[in-house]
Amino acid sequence: MSAFHGVFPYLVSPVAPDGTVLEAELRRLVDHLIASGVHGLTPLGSTGEFAYLDAAQRRRIVEVVVDQAKGRVPIVAGVAATTTADAVRQTKDYAAIGADGILAILEAYFPLSEAAVVAYFTAIADATDKPVVLYTNPNFQRSDLTLPAIDALSRHPRIVGIKDASTNTGRLLSILNRTEGRMEVFAASAHIPLAVMMIGGKGWMAGPACAIPRESVRLYELCRAGKWDAALALQRALWRVNELFAAHSLAACIKGALQIQGFAVGDPIAPQAPLSAEGRVAVEKALALAAEALAAAPSA
Amino acid sequence: MSAFHGVFPYLVSPVAPDGTVLEAELRRLVDHLIASGVHGLTPLGSTGEFAYLDAAQRRRIVEVVVDQAKGRVPIVAGVAATTTADAVRQTKDYAAIGADGILAILEAYFPLSEAAVVAYFTAIADATDKPVVLYTNPNFQRSDLTLPAIDALSRHPRIVGIKDASTNTGRLLSILNRTEGRMEVFAASAHIPLAVMMIGGKGWMAGPACAIPRESVRLYELCRAGKWDAALALQRALWRVNELFAAHSLAACIKGALQIQGFAVGDPIAPQAPLSAEGRVAVEKALALAAEALAAAPSA
Amino acid sequence: MSAFHGVFPYLVSPVAPDGTVLEAELRRLVDHLIASGVHGLTPLGSTGEFAYLDAAQRRRIVEVVVDQAKGRVPIVAGVAATTTADAVRQTKDYAAIGADGILAILEAYFPLSEAAVVAYFTAIADATDKPVVLYTNPNFQRSDLTLPAIDALSRHPRIVGIKDASTNTGRLLSILNRTEGRMEVFAASAHIPLAVMMIGGKGWMAGPACAIPRESVRLYELCRAGKWDAALALQRALWRVNELFAAHSLAACIKGALQIQGFAVGDPIAPQAPLSAEGRVAVEKALALAAEALAAAPSA
Amino acid sequence: MSAFHGVFPYLVSPVAPDGTVLEAELRRLVDHLIASGVHGLTPLGSTGEFAYLDAAQRRRIVEVVVDQAKGRVPIVAGVAATTTADAVRQTKDYAAIGADGILAILEAYFPLSEAAVVAYFTAIADATDKPVVLYTNPNFQRSDLTLPAIDALSRHPRIVGIKDASTNTGRLLSILNRTEGRMEVFAASAHIPLAVMMIGGKGWMAGPACAIPRESVRLYELCRAGKWDAALALQRALWRVNELFAAHSLAACIKGALQIQGFAVGDPIAPQAPLSAEGRVAVEKALALAAEALAAAPSA
Repeated sequence: MSAFHGVFPYLVSPVAPDGTVLEAELRRLVDHLIASGVHGLTPLGSTGEFAYLDAAQRRRIVEVVVDQAKGRVPIVAGVAATTTADAVRQTKDYAAIGADGILAILEAYFPLSEAAVVAYFTAIADATDKPVVLYTNPNFQRSDLTLPAIDALSRHPRIVGIKDASTNTGRLLSILNRTEGRMEVFAASAHIPLAVMMIGGKGWMAGPACAIPRESVRLYELCRAGKWDAALALQRALWRVNELFAAHSLAACIKGALQIQGFAVGDPIAPQAPLSAEGRVAVEKALALAAEALAAAPSA
Repeated sequence: MSAFHGVFPYLVSPVAPDGTVLEAELRRLVDHLIASGVHGLTPLGSTGEFAYLDAAQRRRIVEVVVDQAKGRVPIVAGVAATTTADAVRQTKDYAAIGADGILAILEAYFPLSEAAVVAYFTAIADATDKPVVLYTNPNFQRSDLTLPAIDALSRHPRIVGIKDASTNTGRLLSILNRTEGRMEVFAASAHIPLAVMMIGGKGWMAGPACAIPRESVRLYELCRAGKWDAALALQRALWRVNELFAAHSLAACIKGALQIQGFAVGDPIAPQAPLSAEGRVAVEKALALAAEALAAAPSA
Repeated sequence: MSAFHGVFPYLVSPVAPDGTVLEAELRRLVDHLIASGVHGLTPLGSTGEFAYLDAAQRRRIVEVVVDQAKGRVPIVAGVAATTTADAVRQTKDYAAIGADGILAILEAYFPLSEAAVVAYFTAIADATDKPVVLYTNPNFQRSDLTLPAIDALSRHPRIVGIKDASTNTGRLLSILNRTEGRMEVFAASAHIPLAVMMIGGKGWMAGPACAIPRESVRLYELCRAGKWDAALALQRALWRVNELFAAHSLAACIKGALQIQGFAVGDPIAPQAPLSAEGRVAVEKALALAAEALAAAPSA
Repeated sequence: MSAFHGVFPYLVSPVAPDGTVLEAELRRLVDHLIASGVHGLTPLGSTGEFAYLDAAQRRRIVEVVVDQAKGRVPIVAGVAATTTADAVRQTKDYAAIGADGILAILEAYFPLSEAAVVAYFTAIADATDKPVVLYTNPNFQRSDLTLPAIDALSRHPRIVGIKDASTNTGRLLSILNRTEGRMEVFAASAHIPLAVMMIGGKGWMAGPACAIPRESVRLYELCRAGKWDAALALQRALWRVNELFAAHSLAACIKGALQIQGFAVGDPIAPQAPLSAEGRVAVEKALALAAEALAAAPSA
């Protein structure tokens, strides 16, 4: 049995220029995504701009999301820190608020030994009775998880999965081979979800699903039903959204896509720039193609 | 209609310490691979150690392979140079010898502008009436092909495909989306062949297929037949071979695997080191697991 | 006239396991360094572990250092943030506490455009009437300052200098050529201070000076006096300290060196590891060689 | 006593579009540089485009340079190969032609172990009775020499020096410290020659000296005479030439600079592009500034 499965959008963090969390809009977004059929929600992922929020903002966002979801779908909250003490504090805090799982992120400034990396993630898992999903992003973090480190961590009873944000899909198969059922794998926006489902993935946790939730859910269902040809046709259209998100700034792209859809989630936090006019046109086009592809797709 | 499809092993280049091409052993290997069902052969790929061979050795290897294959399968010969003039000379030479296609490789020392890169590959395609497959390897080459450059090159009537040796499978889907049927995609050993077939690839050109040809062919056939579950079971076993080849030196690994199978292909060219004793044990184990998985796999 | 010049040790941040700033020890360290002749102090530099401290800890450290220095030497406090708002807040805060200058650091998670980078540093300089020194570290930060960006920033009346922590000394000369007297250059621990002084640098801001303050001051004085041969002899010995700090973890190395000298500054903040036993032996030896070289050096 | 010292320009390789070595122009260039006072000549360095020349072209260039120099200055010829056998053959060949020293370069495609790297350079030194200078360029080669490897190689009786083309000047001081007089250090165009002379370097081997030989020689002489202030004034002007060469393609820049000075050395070998019109203007300006600075410099 799987702790988590399916499509978990990385929620954007709507914040006013003065730093206030835009709670009403965040609640609307939570309702909209749940109504679109997503299987869970992940506040404070990378496109949730965790790196740009202070402790109070992060805490408030988890509170609002948990309160609004009301148990309809599991909430896997991002914990990100440079120090073990801060990570443990966040973990206990978010579990107490009611999060159903923890997405564990290591921020590093100086390089760390593998033992230190393993100790960090172990401390998070030891601090909670909730399932923990590891997150590793070699592009934006200064640390990566090696296969032996992942293997060691997979033996912890609460560490149940990993979201690997490299572009290296082969690494996911290596993780699955190496951990022999002890670690579930989730795709990130740099992977093709279809390919990850094909090799045994459980779903995906990623920013784009926040902008195209219904399309993402249908793709997941087609994969689960083994309707691979229909899944591929839909995947090819949806991949254009991921390409855009890689070309433009991620947070700008997803906040922009939500603004286009009528959600007043604001701009990325400065000094990040808002989505450019050119970017907005490209996003509008990609969203339209995704909607078309969904209309053309069979049900699962 | 596809110029090439299926499994194209990168042939190792058996060379004696004094530089003589070991022709008899190369002929045995060609016969063995064709008997194993491969769909084509690629001499002078990266694991063919092109970078370690002089012009006369390279030419002799193409001659021997073409002569021995006798048209039973297509031969796609690797052309690799730092200068346009040398690349054009090799292309004409190998086509005159009887190669059925060209695998075009750019070696760079100083960085090149995109226009220069496109000019190089265009000059190769202009120099022949054979189909040309581009090869790009961001890990070992100092130059990579951007999507706009690939798009431009896909419009050349003789440029029919690309083998991308990054680990980024999403890039392959971007190439397919962008070139809209003008460019066929082949997996490299850094990609999961199953995943590449699933998203529309035509096959793979890679070193490991030289060591596990029958297993590779069965995997290809299962993919073609849409027997994805059986394909995945076989793929998971075969992936261990690719992992080994990434961990150890590629040429050493494949020459070692062939020695284990009774082919006296010699060692990698110095200063490259031969496969270590530890590496040999790991390769033997991976080959045994691959054979087991083949025995357990259904026919396609 | 120069806003700042000479040797500015990056102060370590002594913190107890429960997060309390060890104020008494920090005060002792401040007195010791001033007594050793340093020209200024820099709390919250990289080896000050700014990335591992929360807002309250950072603020308290600046307060203690300013209070203890009592104006004997200038205090240039590190401001580091991912958001413009947080950087401006820190800047105003530290200036109000009494810092004499700001060392401005950009922490980035997602890549930023050059305009956004320039806007970030400009906002810091606009927020204060104190001189601002830019800090750029391409190894540990996800953003670097280009020459055009440095040129643009050098025209701000409060931006007076730059500390570049690349290993590329030629870049410092390019900065000096480009900014034509508008930007003073300080060496980091990755540069040879002697070489930077020779090309027109004003001094250095770096962790090692915290462990070898008297040796660093003598080296500075010899450079200023044009006694280059004596400076080189001393520099060669001191460089071994910098080599160690590059080989081992920086914060661990400097905190370890201070413990050897009788300062109970504690360990680096977890999950960073303390200095290993082997590292301690190497640091002891390097400190002894530095002391010997100082004894052998002429006065300036 | 030093095997080599002073300014060794990396000679460009003048080659006609059909591949013929332009011997007359190469002889003129050799005479011009010797008349300008350079201390030696280095054919087949990186800006000599060794990577773009075949074996016959390389051999002919060494023959012409040795023949024309007639022993007036030492010739240190570049040996570059992927295989040990080829490197040994080139070494013996160039020594037989009359080269006074060997600049040893490793070209790598697949990564090599440190033992293999050391074995490669040792084989070169074992193959000759001439002094050997190691060349390492982490930017354009796929292999770098670690400090322990340099230390081991420094113990070979014929390995006398190293030219390190990283931008990391501190590494040069680490090499000097580590090899304790067994290894002489030469600057590359990425280092500030003045800074390298200051820390104990013996001179520089680099492309720019081919375009500004008299300026380079004066700078060397000022450094040797300890006239550091005058050296710095000249160095600041000359550094602009190095900056240009880093911004534009190296071979294009130096061939362009020589064309401006009346040497018909042709264009870089295709697919490398010739110097752009904009680049030519920038080079002309930098040459004029260098000449002005020379006129203003005192004699040594």
